[in-house]
Amino acid sequence: MIEFPPYVISPIGIIHSCYPEKFGIPRQPGLVTSSSGRLELLPPWNREEMVKGLDAFSHIWIQFLFHEAVAEGWRPTLRPPWLGGQKRVGVFASRSPHRPNFLGISVVRLTGIRKEKKGLFLEIAEIDLLDKTPVVDIKPYVPYSDSVPTASGGFIPPPESVTREVVFTKAAAQYCGDYEHRTGRRLRLLIVETLGQDPRPASQRHQVREYGMALWDVNVRWQAHGERFLVLSIGEE
Amino acid sequence: MIEFPPYVISPIGIIHSCYPEKFGIPRQPGLVTSSSGRLELLPPWNREEMVKGLDAFSHIWIQFLFHEAVAEGWRPTLRPPWLGGQKRVGVFASRSPHRPNFLGISVVRLTGIRKEKKGLFLEIAEIDLLDKTPVVDIKPYVPYSDSVPTASGGFIPPPESVTREVVFTKAAAQYCGDYEHRTGRRLRLLIVETLGQDPRPASQRHQVREYGMALWDVNVRWQAHGERFLVLSIGEE
Repeated sequence: MIEFPPYVISPIGIIHSCYPEKFGIPRQPGLVTSSSGRLELLPPWNREEMVKGLDAFSHIWIQFLFHEAVAEGWRPTLRPPWLGGQKRVGVFASRSPHRPNFLGISVVRLTGIRKEKKGLFLEIAEIDLLDKTPVVDIKPYVPYSDSVPTASGGFIPPPESVTREVVFTKAAAQYCGDYEHRTGRRLRLLIVETLGQDPRPASQRHQVREYGMALWDVNVRWQAHGERFLVLSIGEE
Repeated sequence: MIEFPPYVISPIGIIHSCYPEKFGIPRQPGLVTSSSGRLELLPPWNREEMVKGLDAFSHIWIQFLFHEAVAEGWRPTLRPPWLGGQKRVGVFASRSPHRPNFLGISVVRLTGIRKEKKGLFLEIAEIDLLDKTPVVDIKPYVPYSDSVPTASGGFIPPPESVTREVVFTKAAAQYCGDYEHRTGRRLRLLIVETLGQDPRPASQRHQVREYGMALWDVNVRWQAHGERFLVLSIGEE
């Protein structure tokens, strides 16, 4: 009988993300090119020497904890969204957060490393990470071993290449312009790309209703009209 | 100031690998196609339902602990082997085992799932995992998000495409034949591919000396003669 000690892991960083809530987060990284955030390294791991040479890589692995799932617990089987919530598979055949040890991996684009008075930050883009996610490791993405383009993807279909059309009310468009001017964040593109992936659960895709979605520090109100999404208003959280 | 609780993680499986020692392990998975092993699921995670649907994937991620590095501790910077042990980089810019939290990820080929009396096993190949490695998660490899062939690989060069020539003494060749007949393990190919990657540290590549290398349950004695390796003898461990 094999017995392992329990291992204690400590977060080495925390994610500051454009996604303060689960709703709206793309199902996989790389789908929403305008999504971005920062990885703040926590003491005692916030020493510049520990990321020396990392800027030579275009992409990095972030290993993290699905911290919101910890309280909810793990499940042996589940119905993944890409099967329309119908078919049941084992948790190890899924990328669900509700998994033993609650560990996630995500490849993101590394766009910069900034040393500031308040800390050491990795600038990251094309992310699918929730705000305040605890990070437990950072690794360079090494294409010759990590990239297996010929791997067969089982039952997980690639994302739909046809994205939804997204239109804005005048007020919503104006808000985006002002916000981008004030913060430098490309809010309008982020909304277009995030809604373009259709964040609604499959079970709600035939309903007509209004949704609220948090992005950065604002709340976006929108409605689905068939295949077309209308952004009604945007305001402070 | 952000404060996280320490998280406790428990191994959900253990690796049984052709590599009982670090020496000989390829630097990345996928380099030695004849390397193989089994991932044994541990109770209470050894239920067939937990891997239901996983057999639809050709490749899986194994998240594991670099258990031998835990006692040795982590280092903020190190000199990775692909830079000839010369240049110093940060640990987060490396795939070194001596990292905070000691977490590793590896993509391997999934060749089967076996339910046996003594447990539930995933058959895996093209591995770079040490025997007895504790596994903390299993995930399907999803090419459309995990495969980024255009990622720039920084200072990590792809492995040498010219592999070393490997020749066998008569006795060593005979041993391989008998061993393969008895166990079904392709020992000769494993030796050829493993030595072909030149497992010697860069600092020893100009020395003439004899090496011992453990593969499965046997010990392989070999010598380097310039670019050519001679397998002298093979015996029980």
